[in-house]
Amino acid sequence: MFIGAQVSLYPMTSDFVDVIMTGLEALSPYEADLRIETDDMSTLMVGAPEPLFAAIRDLFAAAAKRPEHVTMHVTFSRGCPGEPDDPSCRCETLEQAQEQSLSDRQALAAQAVVQAPDLGVGIDVQFSLYVMGSGNHMDEIYGCIDFLKGSGTFHGSKNFCTRLRGDAGAVFETLRQAFLRFGPAQGHVTIDMTASANSPSLR
Amino acid sequence: MFIGAQVSLYPMTSDFVDVIMTGLEALSPYEADLRIETDDMSTLMVGAPEPLFAAIRDLFAAAAKRPEHVTMHVTFSRGCPGEPDDPSCRCETLEQAQEQSLSDRQALAAQAVVQAPDLGVGIDVQFSLYVMGSGNHMDEIYGCIDFLKGSGTFHGSKNFCTRLRGDAGAVFETLRQAFLRFGPAQGHVTIDMTASANSPSLR
Repeated sequence: MFIGAQVSLYPMTSDFVDVIMTGLEALSPYEADLRIETDDMSTLMVGAPEPLFAAIRDLFAAAAKRPEHVTMHVTFSRGCPGEPDDPSCRCETLEQAQEQSLSDRQALAAQAVVQAPDLGVGIDVQFSLYVMGSGNHMDEIYGCIDFLKGSGTFHGSKNFCTRLRGDAGAVFETLRQAFLRFGPAQGHVTIDMTASANSPSLR
Repeated sequence: MFIGAQVSLYPMTSDFVDVIMTGLEALSPYEADLRIETDDMSTLMVGAPEPLFAAIRDLFAAAAKRPEHVTMHVTFSRGCPGEPDDPSCRCETLEQAQEQSLSDRQALAAQAVVQAPDLGVGIDVQFSLYVMGSGNHMDEIYGCIDFLKGSGTFHGSKNFCTRLRGDAGAVFETLRQAFLRFGPAQGHVTIDMTASANSPSLR
């Protein structure tokens, strides 16, 4: 299994380099657990979902604590057949999911969001979950949407995606649960996610 | 068939509202052909792929002609089983694709990129093509990658995505061809795309 993300932070300010550097500092605690490589368009992070989602959450939360409008785009991927197996990506949640029914996975996902840490940073997210190479992908998608509606972070459905709103801790736990608990445990699943904070449209 | 996109423009400047307004003006010629709805996170555009990709291309090109660093994220979707049929999204290219072999589709895609207009704006793109609900989705993905490598806009492979670089005309035609010619003609196909222009990382 290969698990990772391409991450891009977009501060809507002329001081964008400074905001990006503030965000990148928040990644320090995760450098031992993740492979992190930056180019001119995005930062690749490869590793197990526990540090992966925590690192991306902390990156965005650090930038969002500043006053400027900031957004972030992330492409999450697990199980892509074109990527090599990587032992650092091993994930017990995924291994256990193979034996669990959809309703069991929905209950475990909901419980994880309740236990998420509170970071004191309100954020908006919209995302799409994609399940590839499976004939019944919409069953898993609808099962995931049911979980999202009861997660406490659900903020509405849009064409092609779902809105979430809440504390960065609960929102990123919701995303991690959607990513891990839905779609075949050993299959190819991706998330296309956009986050936003301090938007003047909401003032 | 339902075809559309969620589009977000991110200017890395404190004058971001002004840059976004410049970009939105470029959408005027397409207002008759597309349904366009904006909220605080993205702009929904629904319609046939011809005006859809042209509108998004012109939006980004207008913003990229200014000196500021600007990025854009787009989620393209066709054939999502959860969306209603919409006659305005009818697309002859897709209807014809049902009868065409993979190699025929690759040749037609390459030809379309050669004929793309030159907009005089150099841009960078990275994107992922997702083909859902099909057992052989990787055959279509690898067929698409072969097309991309010969498209003249290919700029390298990354984990989870492909880089394109070139004039906005050729790059967005490459994206449209990838979206229309690969994956089942009546199936659910999406693209997760990020564009960038005037990045200080490249100076």
